[in-house]
Amino acid sequence: MHTAVLRLNSEDKKGIVYNVSKFLYERGGNIIDAQQHTEQLDNRFFMRVHFDRREMQCTKQELKRELDELAAANNMEVEITFNDERKRMAILVSRYDHCLYDLFLRHQYGEINADIVLVVSNHPDLEHVAANFKVPYCCVPIEKSEKESAENKILELFQQHYIDFIVLARYMQVLTPLMVNAYRKRIINVHHGFLPAFKGAKPYHQAYEHGVKLIGATSHYVTEDLDMGPIIQQETVRVNHTHSVEDLVSMGRDVEKKVLAYAVKAHAEDRIMVYRHRTIVFE
Amino acid sequence: MHTAVLRLNSEDKKGIVYNVSKFLYERGGNIIDAQQHTEQLDNRFFMRVHFDRREMQCTKQELKRELDELAAANNMEVEITFNDERKRMAILVSRYDHCLYDLFLRHQYGEINADIVLVVSNHPDLEHVAANFKVPYCCVPIEKSEKESAENKILELFQQHYIDFIVLARYMQVLTPLMVNAYRKRIINVHHGFLPAFKGAKPYHQAYEHGVKLIGATSHYVTEDLDMGPIIQQETVRVNHTHSVEDLVSMGRDVEKKVLAYAVKAHAEDRIMVYRHRTIVFE
Amino acid sequence: MHTAVLRLNSEDKKGIVYNVSKFLYERGGNIIDAQQHTEQLDNRFFMRVHFDRREMQCTKQELKRELDELAAANNMEVEITFNDERKRMAILVSRYDHCLYDLFLRHQYGEINADIVLVVSNHPDLEHVAANFKVPYCCVPIEKSEKESAENKILELFQQHYIDFIVLARYMQVLTPLMVNAYRKRIINVHHGFLPAFKGAKPYHQAYEHGVKLIGATSHYVTEDLDMGPIIQQETVRVNHTHSVEDLVSMGRDVEKKVLAYAVKAHAEDRIMVYRHRTIVFE
Amino acid sequence: MHTAVLRLNSEDKKGIVYNVSKFLYERGGNIIDAQQHTEQLDNRFFMRVHFDRREMQCTKQELKRELDELAAANNMEVEITFNDERKRMAILVSRYDHCLYDLFLRHQYGEINADIVLVVSNHPDLEHVAANFKVPYCCVPIEKSEKESAENKILELFQQHYIDFIVLARYMQVLTPLMVNAYRKRIINVHHGFLPAFKGAKPYHQAYEHGVKLIGATSHYVTEDLDMGPIIQQETVRVNHTHSVEDLVSMGRDVEKKVLAYAVKAHAEDRIMVYRHRTIVFE
Repeated sequence: MHTAVLRLNSEDKKGIVYNVSKFLYERGGNIIDAQQHTEQLDNRFFMRVHFDRREMQCTKQELKRELDELAAANNMEVEITFNDERKRMAILVSRYDHCLYDLFLRHQYGEINADIVLVVSNHPDLEHVAANFKVPYCCVPIEKSEKESAENKILELFQQHYIDFIVLARYMQVLTPLMVNAYRKRIINVHHGFLPAFKGAKPYHQAYEHGVKLIGATSHYVTEDLDMGPIIQQETVRVNHTHSVEDLVSMGRDVEKKVLAYAVKAHAEDRIMVYRHRTIVFE
Repeated sequence: MHTAVLRLNSEDKKGIVYNVSKFLYERGGNIIDAQQHTEQLDNRFFMRVHFDRREMQCTKQELKRELDELAAANNMEVEITFNDERKRMAILVSRYDHCLYDLFLRHQYGEINADIVLVVSNHPDLEHVAANFKVPYCCVPIEKSEKESAENKILELFQQHYIDFIVLARYMQVLTPLMVNAYRKRIINVHHGFLPAFKGAKPYHQAYEHGVKLIGATSHYVTEDLDMGPIIQQETVRVNHTHSVEDLVSMGRDVEKKVLAYAVKAHAEDRIMVYRHRTIVFE
Repeated sequence: MHTAVLRLNSEDKKGIVYNVSKFLYERGGNIIDAQQHTEQLDNRFFMRVHFDRREMQCTKQELKRELDELAAANNMEVEITFNDERKRMAILVSRYDHCLYDLFLRHQYGEINADIVLVVSNHPDLEHVAANFKVPYCCVPIEKSEKESAENKILELFQQHYIDFIVLARYMQVLTPLMVNAYRKRIINVHHGFLPAFKGAKPYHQAYEHGVKLIGATSHYVTEDLDMGPIIQQETVRVNHTHSVEDLVSMGRDVEKKVLAYAVKAHAEDRIMVYRHRTIVFE
Repeated sequence: MHTAVLRLNSEDKKGIVYNVSKFLYERGGNIIDAQQHTEQLDNRFFMRVHFDRREMQCTKQELKRELDELAAANNMEVEITFNDERKRMAILVSRYDHCLYDLFLRHQYGEINADIVLVVSNHPDLEHVAANFKVPYCCVPIEKSEKESAENKILELFQQHYIDFIVLARYMQVLTPLMVNAYRKRIINVHHGFLPAFKGAKPYHQAYEHGVKLIGATSHYVTEDLDMGPIIQQETVRVNHTHSVEDLVSMGRDVEKKVLAYAVKAHAEDRIMVYRHRTIVFE
């Protein structure tokens, strides 16, 4: 429980691992796991360190400040998160319940290192699911002409519930830049197609038309560019000529749940770093 | 050995299975396997019947003629192939040898119900591979300005060797309509991307740029529309941020071999039917 | 809706497909799909015919009787089921809820061609799940000394609810021969290991000890021989040295759900035939 | 090229990462990648560090000595390997050529960080394959009564060719303890079954009898205990009732190649550590 995660990126140069491990060692931290990655093309170095801070003397505040000094001195970008500050997550849904159920159940099994504290929907249909897991459910209808005001309501709800990140669990509305900006790199979406193929609406119909032999799903961070945000996970499932569009929809549910759950878990455990249009997901 | 494969398609209506099984039964044929498929949207019925003709009295000629009569009477399209008329296959390659080796080895293990009788390439590099398996290798260089005349040479080679179908085993040239027309639905290509994503050149570079988490390969029949012919098989393999473009190329080789071999086997066994832009591949 | 499924097996001989298709044709039936399989070693022929009986004049009773005559005349074993007689299914659970939720949700999406009419458990814990889906939940505690009497109670419940088949959704009790006999080939179990490896208790611990790189799950019909009944489906998921036994348990949940749902769907659609120790599952 | 790999294991305690990174930093080494693993049950810590030693002043000899000192002082087990000392590998085969071809081709594509310098077989059949890739092929027939003397001959060949590790590419002989001891943790075998199921002879026949729905293959280090050495990789492929034993053999070839190649690559790159009966394979 008393652990923390340090993520940094910097130009690749000698001694980064040494400097970071020295920094932690000198303050009584014990490295549980450390992972690195170097983007060869840019000579950019990424590191995630999971460490035990039970025997550290400094406060979180001090640790942060000293880390910032280390970062400034070495021209690194640094971020630290503490496991005892559990993330609070909101789920946006429309009418499909499979991803919602899946997230609730995985949370219940202890698979997700975050709390589901709020469900928001543009429809009233799934209230009973949230009720079943004792989580507040707010219905905020979206009318085309008043989309911004609706999103403002949602943003208020998020602030009120101290939301750290947002999961679009088959939410059938395109977010405005307002929302995207407010939670940059903290909104996770699931697209029911193998991106970058089948962007936009009705990906299963598109897949059927093309006669593909695999259908897929993609989880990604949301950016202004629809269905083009950094990909977190993808999965496919084999189909053949016997499958109708309805079959694809049904088979797709399983992979949608899988890639979304993977992304939510990884985000909750601070295992993702975004660089340009790509994600680094430390396992 | 003395078996035949009957493939038919027609409007879906009562009695097709009965009429076909009656036709074969009355002539002494024994159904080994029969498969059907109905395209719901079009009410189109497809059938493949694999039958034993050892106890049939009629000649192939007679069988064909009588089948044509049955087809005409019932407004069906019919095709029959005989297992003792083994298909003759030509492979077109450029410089990559992995698909070529894979096809030769699978052929040697008896996995492919066809004979590899000719290898043609626009480069001399892979002659030793064909030599190793004792198959003639013809080098026909392709110069941009004289593409048609080069393809005419290749077509001549095909006629000379009685080629039934053609496999592009990472052949790095776009075929002209001349060739495509001459062997319609009989040219199989492998594309090193998950079509319809990543059409055209350098699919692994495209995949890397998009930061996808799965790369794929696709085997398909060749049509005039580049990389858009009916898909026969697709396969993906998981990748992550640690993989460079070179790694993708290397990991892609395995799936390229797999989807191409699948398509070649299915075609050789007359298990594929093409309808509109989609394939029906009976297992 | 007005369709029926005919399953037959017999010695393999000429004319079976013809005789069956003739039988149906003459009575106004229309074959939607027909699949065959021949066990080469035994020369045993299996067939499943899905046909439309809207235009058939005969009653179900007459159809059954005439089929029995056909079967007797040709020395075949025949079984017919009618799609308008939807199967009634009972689920047995203990304390794990993932398979139970999964079955309820798939049923709700229309994926399972049967009704969940009863949940029985040896613990009271999961009543709320059944309640959420409005299905009666009966708790029948099992005490070692009185196992038979407990199972008699359960059997009574089954009769009372006209149960056609039973699904053990991680039910942690070994069934007595009494129960196995009463529902032979109609009890489906999920084992959380890749059978025949890891039979018996604690398969994930066994898998961990062996340092396997894939864990699996198996769905099968229940026989007297524990964990040795005919296998219906299996699935694996990759693991590595970083995964603890708890991780295996968590990762295993997904494959357990998948193989069990596959088996339940196939059984409900009359797509499974059992021959010796093996299953034929028509897709 | 001028890189080295350091593998260590020790009791888990604070400061190991720090001490190792300090050791390398002070000598001018640059960490390219570092991976850790802790076996929770035993509180045992494992680490693999891949580092650049171009700017290191010390000789290999000095580096080794100083590392041994560090290890002794901290009660760690340490092993260091240098990338410019490319491993020399021998392949043992019998009559199946698919794994042999696969290893040669992957080596040719640069996928394997080792040299194939010798092929030994108890049969003369595959000489032409080795010849095709210009590698010496020695035939050492194994007679039951003189197994030890035959293995002595093979061991001599290994010494003569400075062999570092051995790959059994479907070698159909059980090794004697003599050989196993001489190359402990340096003999890699591929078993054509999903171990620990289907140990011993004819695993595909066993799999067929059990009616499994997935067949598999396993690569592992060879120990005295037949088919029970530490597992390196496993893979499965889906099968069904239509597949004969011969089909399983054919489908199994692909997974055998895959798991063996994975193990050979990982071993060649010093990415494997063995602890008790399990392997840690750093990716």
